Amino acid sequence: VSQSRRLGGDAGTRVAVVGAGSWGTAFACHLTSCGLATTLLARRPEQAESLRRHHRNPDYLPFLDLPPDLAYGTYPRTDFASFALLALAVPSKAYTEVLRSIAPRLPRGVRILSLTKGLEPSTHKRFSEVLQFELAALEPMVAVLSGPNHAEEVAMGQPTATVIASADQEHAQALQELVGNERLRTYVNSDLIGIELAGAVKNVVALATGMSDGLGYGDNARAALITRGLAEIARLGTALGAESRTFAGLAGLGDLVGTCTSRHSRNRLAGELIAQGHVPSRVEEEMGMVAEGLTAAQAVLALAREHGVEMPITENVVAVLFEGKDVRASVRDLMARQLRPESL
Amino acid sequence: VSQSRRLGGDAGTRVAVVGAGSWGTAFACHLTSCGLATTLLARRPEQAESLRRHHRNPDYLPFLDLPPDLAYGTYPRTDFASFALLALAVPSKAYTEVLRSIAPRLPRGVRILSLTKGLEPSTHKRFSEVLQFELAALEPMVAVLSGPNHAEEVAMGQPTATVIASADQEHAQALQELVGNERLRTYVNSDLIGIELAGAVKNVVALATGMSDGLGYGDNARAALITRGLAEIARLGTALGAESRTFAGLAGLGDLVGTCTSRHSRNRLAGELIAQGHVPSRVEEEMGMVAEGLTAAQAVLALAREHGVEMPITENVVAVLFEGKDVRASVRDLMARQLRPESL
Repeated sequence: VSQSRRLGGDAGTRVAVVGAGSWGTAFACHLTSCGLATTLLARRPEQAESLRRHHRNPDYLPFLDLPPDLAYGTYPRTDFASFALLALAVPSKAYTEVLRSIAPRLPRGVRILSLTKGLEPSTHKRFSEVLQFELAALEPMVAVLSGPNHAEEVAMGQPTATVIASADQEHAQALQELVGNERLRTYVNSDLIGIELAGAVKNVVALATGMSDGLGYGDNARAALITRGLAEIARLGTALGAESRTFAGLAGLGDLVGTCTSRHSRNRLAGELIAQGHVPSRVEEEMGMVAEGLTAAQAVLALAREHGVEMPITENVVAVLFEGKDVRASVRDLMARQLRPESL
Repeated sequence: VSQSRRLGGDAGTRVAVVGAGSWGTAFACHLTSCGLATTLLARRPEQAESLRRHHRNPDYLPFLDLPPDLAYGTYPRTDFASFALLALAVPSKAYTEVLRSIAPRLPRGVRILSLTKGLEPSTHKRFSEVLQFELAALEPMVAVLSGPNHAEEVAMGQPTATVIASADQEHAQALQELVGNERLRTYVNSDLIGIELAGAVKNVVALATGMSDGLGYGDNARAALITRGLAEIARLGTALGAESRTFAGLAGLGDLVGTCTSRHSRNRLAGELIAQGHVPSRVEEEMGMVAEGLTAAQAVLALAREHGVEMPITENVVAVLFEGKDVRASVRDLMARQLRPESL
């Protein structure tokens, strides 16, 4: 291991989080608890100023006191050269745009940890692909973090386990040491395809289980949907080159279960609201939060069709969201499919 | 298919359920909704009389009106010759004893559908093995039913999917037609070992997730435990000859998720109570319900040791239940193990 690849972790190592939504804010709190000199970067100066003044993020994590040693800034103005690590936590829809806007200020060999779960909406690429493509000239070191990691619980230091995936195992292991502690257990994985697809598709399945909940169906229906959902995720993933065992792990099964059964999940909640009659196109605005499944659903379905993979849950979610299909008919159609022999 | 192997399903086909706890009662309601002439058999005459008079089972399903056409009896006195199917829903602890007591009254070639999830406590045998052994002279047709099937929801006709497993696929398919409908979707599977082990061990994992909940840990910790729990179940199962894909199905992952995340789950609740300081040996009495995981834990651990399989969750649950280990230390030990690379 060359010295230049070592990633410190000494007190004072400077790291930045781009995006001050709930996950970015929570992860910045976590990085601070790892002893890292952390700067949370919002988009607008007023937002950074409000965070700095009140040590609160009332829009996204209203009940949380932010740690006093967390610093704030704005990513449109920051010079990124002095940071040992850049964590990206911006919504899927804005990811490429934000990346392009900061790229001219990123150093050569920049270390990136991507926290966003989803696919690039127009190209259907995974975000590690987007990073490698957009930053090719900088030869970035790219990793993604994914797992059953509700922001609120990570921010509060509740016991959590997660996965850091990278094609560069040294980078992944350096990050494991840097951002893991006894509250956030991290382990490394090299299957970027599997980890990133699982993180994107699980939000679509969570919309479906939310719809089932919203119709008043119970835990039995939800467990059946989760089971078929994981099979659907694994089918797409392996068709795209992922390892099937990834889907039995924390970033596959673990994250799916966490998202589909949690009171914290926005995607589950969005599905519930839609089943109760809210208009799909207005649900994010009503919640005041991004539900990534709403953006991911069409990209996932496009990938599935491109690769000839059957994804009945995703199909039904897209039909409800964008084609006016009745929610009850969709969930009934999904349950009816259970009669076929199970296949992975 | 010989005529003698056909199983009717015509209105008037008589079926019996042995055991009037919550699952037996719920399944009897379901069988009635399939148009089968169903008799629910309790142990004591007073219990049968109370069910017959009030159409209620106040101890187990207090909010449910039992269907008017459900008949009642007592299994210590019933002549079983006229029933086309016998569904067994007695607790693990009493299973062999009840079976031996009714065996002299069972017809040759008796069709049995076993509903109990667990292992025979003293021999650690699966119940399909117990049935084949105890009834060998009768050449019984044996199947088991397992899946994410909370009794309350099945009784109310909520959408549910389940698995019928048998070494005899004709028997399984006949049962699929007989007991499946649009509310309870059934599918068949031949992997008895996998289906029965999953049904037994998931209750042990549910105790562990209940303990995590009871300590105030969140959805992230629970998702991690469920993920490691399924890996643990699959390790034991495949060591005993099960097919690994069974554990990704409804009776594996599906049932595990259902049990570990449901408000209805007694095993999850038992774990929660124990974490809050209730004495393990008195929890079933306090709940007024059987929590099968309390019986299964030691049998599962014995099987694991016999086959050299590592089962850290089961080990920790047994240590808490029977060796006085501190719950907090156990859950901490389990979370700490996440740092190792994942293995199935």
